[in-house]
Amino acid sequence: MFIASAGDLALGRAKVEGLCQTCHGLDGQATVAMAANLGGQQKGYMVIQLEAFRDGKRQHPQMSIIAQSLSDEDIENVAEWYSSIRVTVEMPD
Amino acid sequence: MFIASAGDLALGRAKVEGLCQTCHGLDGQATVAMAANLGGQQKGYMVIQLEAFRDGKRQHPQMSIIAQSLSDEDIENVAEWYSSIRVTVEMPD
Repeated sequence: MFIASAGDLALGRAKVEGLCQTCHGLDGQATVAMAANLGGQQKGYMVIQLEAFRDGKRQHPQMSIIAQSLSDEDIENVAEWYSSIRVTVEMPD
Repeated sequence: MFIASAGDLALGRAKVEGLCQTCHGLDGQATVAMAANLGGQQKGYMVIQLEAFRDGKRQHPQMSIIAQSLSDEDIENVAEWYSSIRVTVEMPD
């Protein structure tokens, strides 16, 4: 059976609860001013950014450390969770 | 009269229409897979990222070039626009 690299939603949620939600929120609404909102963010974008933090191509005091602990699978799963949050947007008048 | 560095929403919208919306959408919903959604993103985070692209601290094939054209005021205004988009999130079951 072929299984695409889809990321596992439940594993992603568990990883987010343990590692990401303090700053980024379980629902992807950041809890601190300088952290990115991640709810509904594009999955491919998040995978690239997490790999960049892990590999040192993108630098950040917290994220450069935190990303070290992420396997490729963790990155897929975390990105699956945040990208699966549905977002509705309303522009200013 | 003291005016905080609030960013100008109308100028921000105009700049986004001219420079950002092709990839990031006027409403901050990205039109291409690898671009970030920016609707409702935190303003301070966006200011730091745009400055980082402009100053070479963060690298991206498109953004490193595009950010060169942005003044400090442009960055404030663009960030004002995208951060002013109201976002509602709904987590997966």
